[in-house]
Amino acid sequence: MPPSTQLSRIHQLPSGIRHIIARNATCATLPSIITTRQLAHAATRPKLGALANVYLSQQQRSITIKQLDSGRDNRERVVILGSGWAGFTVARQLNTKKYQTVVVSPRSYFAFTPLLASTAVGTLEFRTALEPVRSRRTKVEFVQGWADDVDFKNKTLTVEQAVDDPTQGLALTQDRHAGETQEQRALEKQSDIEKGKTFDLAYDKLIVTVGCYSQTFGTPGVRKYAFFLKDVGDARKIRNRLLACFEAAALPTTPEEMKRQLLNFAVVGGGPTGIEFSAELHDLINEDMAKIYPELIKYHKITVYDVAEKVLPMFDEKLAGYAMDKFKREGIDIKTKHHVEELSPGSPYERNNLKNDKDFRLFTLKIKEEGELGVGMCVWSTGLMQNPFVHQALSNVRAVPDNLRLIESAGDPSFAKDVAWKVKKDERSGSIITDDRLRLKVVPQGKNDKHVAAIVDDVYVLGDCGIIEGTRYPATAQVASQKGLWLAKRLNKQDLDKAGFKFKDLGTLAYIGNWDALFQGGKWGRLQGYIAWAIWRGAYLTRTVSWRNKILVPVYWAVNWLFGRDISRF
Amino acid sequence: MPPSTQLSRIHQLPSGIRHIIARNATCATLPSIITTRQLAHAATRPKLGALANVYLSQQQRSITIKQLDSGRDNRERVVILGSGWAGFTVARQLNTKKYQTVVVSPRSYFAFTPLLASTAVGTLEFRTALEPVRSRRTKVEFVQGWADDVDFKNKTLTVEQAVDDPTQGLALTQDRHAGETQEQRALEKQSDIEKGKTFDLAYDKLIVTVGCYSQTFGTPGVRKYAFFLKDVGDARKIRNRLLACFEAAALPTTPEEMKRQLLNFAVVGGGPTGIEFSAELHDLINEDMAKIYPELIKYHKITVYDVAEKVLPMFDEKLAGYAMDKFKREGIDIKTKHHVEELSPGSPYERNNLKNDKDFRLFTLKIKEEGELGVGMCVWSTGLMQNPFVHQALSNVRAVPDNLRLIESAGDPSFAKDVAWKVKKDERSGSIITDDRLRLKVVPQGKNDKHVAAIVDDVYVLGDCGIIEGTRYPATAQVASQKGLWLAKRLNKQDLDKAGFKFKDLGTLAYIGNWDALFQGGKWGRLQGYIAWAIWRGAYLTRTVSWRNKILVPVYWAVNWLFGRDISRF
Repeated sequence: MPPSTQLSRIHQLPSGIRHIIARNATCATLPSIITTRQLAHAATRPKLGALANVYLSQQQRSITIKQLDSGRDNRERVVILGSGWAGFTVARQLNTKKYQTVVVSPRSYFAFTPLLASTAVGTLEFRTALEPVRSRRTKVEFVQGWADDVDFKNKTLTVEQAVDDPTQGLALTQDRHAGETQEQRALEKQSDIEKGKTFDLAYDKLIVTVGCYSQTFGTPGVRKYAFFLKDVGDARKIRNRLLACFEAAALPTTPEEMKRQLLNFAVVGGGPTGIEFSAELHDLINEDMAKIYPELIKYHKITVYDVAEKVLPMFDEKLAGYAMDKFKREGIDIKTKHHVEELSPGSPYERNNLKNDKDFRLFTLKIKEEGELGVGMCVWSTGLMQNPFVHQALSNVRAVPDNLRLIESAGDPSFAKDVAWKVKKDERSGSIITDDRLRLKVVPQGKNDKHVAAIVDDVYVLGDCGIIEGTRYPATAQVASQKGLWLAKRLNKQDLDKAGFKFKDLGTLAYIGNWDALFQGGKWGRLQGYIAWAIWRGAYLTRTVSWRNKILVPVYWAVNWLFGRDISRF
Repeated sequence: MPPSTQLSRIHQLPSGIRHIIARNATCATLPSIITTRQLAHAATRPKLGALANVYLSQQQRSITIKQLDSGRDNRERVVILGSGWAGFTVARQLNTKKYQTVVVSPRSYFAFTPLLASTAVGTLEFRTALEPVRSRRTKVEFVQGWADDVDFKNKTLTVEQAVDDPTQGLALTQDRHAGETQEQRALEKQSDIEKGKTFDLAYDKLIVTVGCYSQTFGTPGVRKYAFFLKDVGDARKIRNRLLACFEAAALPTTPEEMKRQLLNFAVVGGGPTGIEFSAELHDLINEDMAKIYPELIKYHKITVYDVAEKVLPMFDEKLAGYAMDKFKREGIDIKTKHHVEELSPGSPYERNNLKNDKDFRLFTLKIKEEGELGVGMCVWSTGLMQNPFVHQALSNVRAVPDNLRLIESAGDPSFAKDVAWKVKKDERSGSIITDDRLRLKVVPQGKNDKHVAAIVDDVYVLGDCGIIEGTRYPATAQVASQKGLWLAKRLNKQDLDKAGFKFKDLGTLAYIGNWDALFQGGKWGRLQGYIAWAIWRGAYLTRTVSWRNKILVPVYWAVNWLFGRDISRF
C-alpha cells in the first residue's frame, strides 16, 4: 500500500486506534515497494540492517492495527483481561456475532481450580482441569500477554506478550518486575516496544478479570521454597515433589530420621484448598503409597497449620467440627493458632552435613509455637493478595475519559472534566469497587468527598479483583462465574440497565477425603458424608466445561479407583 | 547391637557384602547405645555434630546391608540395570518367589517408546506411554539411581542415587560427568560416598540393560538446542514448544517472516522415530491447528533431513516409496543426502536485532546443501550412541571373577586366573558381545588371540547395549523385549543351558499419518494403508502393559478424534 493511501485510511479508523497509527506514522516515509519479506532478509545484512530494523520494529506495532481490523466486521471489540473463572465465562458466553471477543491473558487456558488438588496427587490427570482459551468450536480471539497499562481516555490497552513466560502455570506471588528500579523498568519498556514485545490494543469494552496473586504475608522463604496450589503447574510441581519424597525415603542409604522428615508434609492455610489438598494427599498415601511403599508408611505425617482459631471458616461449627474429628481419626493434625515464621532450604541435619545447597532434600519450617521442623514439602495456601496490575494501572486515571458519567454529584455536573479521578477501591482488600452492573467506579483524587463519584462506561471489573459496592460476596469461583455469566447475558441482550447483579448462593462444598465431603447452603441445607461426596463429584462434573473433560474426568476417577494412581515422575 | 555382635555376624553374610562392611568397620567403635534418632538430633548441635556425622554417614552405607537382607528370604538377588524394554520386561516376568528382583535405574518408569511421538503432539496423554517400575501388583524392588561401577569379582555394584536427577525424563546425549577432570571426579566420588549419595549393592545375578544415548555426531549446538524424542520429558518439551510456536506466530506483532520461521519445523533423521513424528505433527497441524489458527496454516512447513539416500531403511523400496509419495502429496519435504552442520539459537534476523539470547525465539539450522534456515524447532533422531557406562564400567575386568568360565581355550584351561580380561565388544557399534544365552563375554586384554574367550556366569547383557555374537539383530524394542522375556523364562525355569535365544521377527510397523501406516514382515508380508494402520494401533494397544493404559489409550484416541487435541501449555 503506498504511504498516501495508508495515511488516508487512518481517518476511517475508530478513534481508539488512531493515536497508535499516529505514533507509527514514520513508517509511511519508507518506500512502499519494499515488502516485509525483503526487509526481513535485508535485516540479516549489516548494511541494510539499520534502516530495515527501524521499519520492522515499527511495522510490528502497526501490524496490530491490521490484525485488529481484519475479521472485526463492524462488531464492537470486547477485550477481556484474564482467563480465570470470570474472564473465561464471559469469553465463552459472549455472542461473537455481536462482539469481537479478545482475551488477553498470560495463561493460554482456563484452570478448573476445584479439581487442582485432585490433579496434584494424581486422582486426575492435569489436563482434565484445563480448558484452552482457543478452541475449534468458539470464535474467541486470544493474545497471550500481560496487560501492562490502560488508557481509559483513548480506550487502549498496552500488552506485553507472554508466550514464553517462565511463570506460566505457576502461582504468582509478586509483581513480575519486582526489584527493578524505575529507570531499569523504563529502559526495559522502551526496549520491549522496539522489539515488538509490547504493543497497544484498542477496545470498545474492557472487562478486567485479572484475579489475585497468592498471599505469603512476606514470610521469609515462602515465595521461593513453598509449593502453591493455584495453577496447574503448581499441581505438577507438588505431584513430582511428593512422589520424589517417597522415592528418596526409599533409598537404602536414607537414615530413619531423614525418612521421617522427607515424609513430613506441612500444609499452611486451613481454607478449602488446604483442607482438600490434605484430604487428597491422605487418600493417595492411604490408598496407593501404603501398597507401593509399605515399609515407609509409618514415617508419614500430614499437618495443617493456620493462624486462625478454626479451619474452614465458610462452614458452620458443626460441619467444620465433623471435618476436624475425621482428620484426627485419620492422623492428620490440624494446628490452629500456629504462626509460620520462615521456610528455608535444608533441615538442620543437612545444613550441618552437606557442603552445598544443591544437595539439600528437606526444608525447615519455623513455627513460632513449635520451633524448627524438617519437612519434605510445605504447601502454602493462605489466601489472596491484590494483583499488582490493579495498583499500577488501575489507580489514578490519567485523563478523563469521554464516557465518564457522574452518578453522585455534590453540585454542578459539568465539573467531571475538570477534576482528577482515581479508581475507587475497597479499603480492606484493595479490590476495585464497581456498581451493581460491574462497572468501574471512580472518585476524585485526593479528596474524601463521599458524595462525588462517577462510573466509567464500558469498563467492567469482576472476579477476585472486583467487588460490588456495599456487598461482601466472597472471592470464590462461584461468585466470579455468576458475575461472568450475568455480564455476558446483559451485553448480549444489551439490557445492562434493566437490573443489577445479585449473587445466588448455591452452597459451599469441600472434599475431606475417603469418599466424604461437606456441603452447606443451597436447597439441601447441610450435608456431610457419602451423599455430600456424591454432590461434590456431581457438581464439579456438571460444571466441567468441555465434553472432552466430562468424559475424561469420570474415566480417570474409575481407572484410578480400580488400578491406583500413577506414580511415574518426569 | 553391641559392636562385637555386629562384627561376629559379618561372617555369616554373603561374600559380596563382606567387603562393604569391612570398609565401614569403624562404625562398630561407637557406643552402641546411641540410636539413629538421637544421633540425627545430635547432628543438629555443633558440639555433638562431628562425631554423630561420621557415624551417620557410615551408617548410611551399612543400612544398605540391612535393606539388602530384610525381605530377601534366601532368594537369589537379581539386580537389573535399566528400566527400558529389556530391563522392564525381565523385571516384570521374573518369578519373585525364586528371586529378589531389584531394578536400578535413573528413571522410575518404563517408557513405551512407540507411543512417544503420539504424546508429543497430544494424540495421547504422556502418562499413557509410561508404566511405573514400582507397582502395587508386583514385588519388584526399585532403587532410583545410576549404576556407576561393577565389581565382578565381589559381585557388587556401585550406585549413585538419582531421585532428583535433573535429566529425568530427557534423552541423554553425553556422560553426566562430562567435562570434569579426573581429580574433580575423584573428589566428587569421595564426597558422594560420605553423603550417602553413592552406595554399594551386592548381586547374585546382574542383568545389564542400560540402553543407549542419543547420537548427535558432535554436531555443534545439537545437544543444547535440538529437541529429542527418546523419553517422555522430551515429548513434553516438544508439545510445549510446538504449541508455543503457533501462539508466538499468532501474536499481532509477529512479522510475516517470523511467522514463517516459527512454523518451520525440521526433523533430522529419517528412521521410524523421525518419520512417525513428522506424520503425527502433520496430523496435529492438519486436524487441529488448521481449525484453531486458520490464518497461520499457510506459513507452516515440515522438512525431514537425512544424510542417507533413502529414509525408513528397514522397509523395502516399495513401502518406503509409498511413504515418500504420501509425504510429498501432504507437503512434507523429505530431503535425503542432506547434512546438518550446526544448530544455533536465534535466526539471522533476531541475532541482528535483539540484544540478548533470552529474547531469541527461533533457531538457525545450517545445512551444508542449503545454508542457514530459521526454524521454530529442530527435532533430532539420528540414532544411538553407546552408553558411557559401557565404556567406563564394562571394559577392563579388574579382578578375575570366580565364576569366569573359559569357553574357548588355546591350551591349558587353568590360565584363566592369571590373565587380565576385558569385556568383548562389537567393533562397529561398541556394544557388548554376549553368547546366545545373553551372558557377558570376555577376552584377554591387549591380546588379539581369537581363540581365547570366557564368559562371566550370572552377568547378562541385553537391550540396545548388548549384541549376541555372530548376529545382527537390530537395536529395536522388539529384540530387547524378546530377549528380556526369554531370559526371565530361562531364569524362572533354571534351564539356561537348554537352548540359545533366537529372535523371531514379528514385522516392522511405522505410522505415516492420516490413518495410514506401513507394515512389513511377519505372516502378513507387506501392507500399507488403513489395514496397516489398524494393525499399528492394535499391536501397540495389545503390547501396552497395564490395564490402566489399555483403557486410557483408546479413550484418548476416541476423545481426541471427536473433540480435537488439547492445546493448553503449562
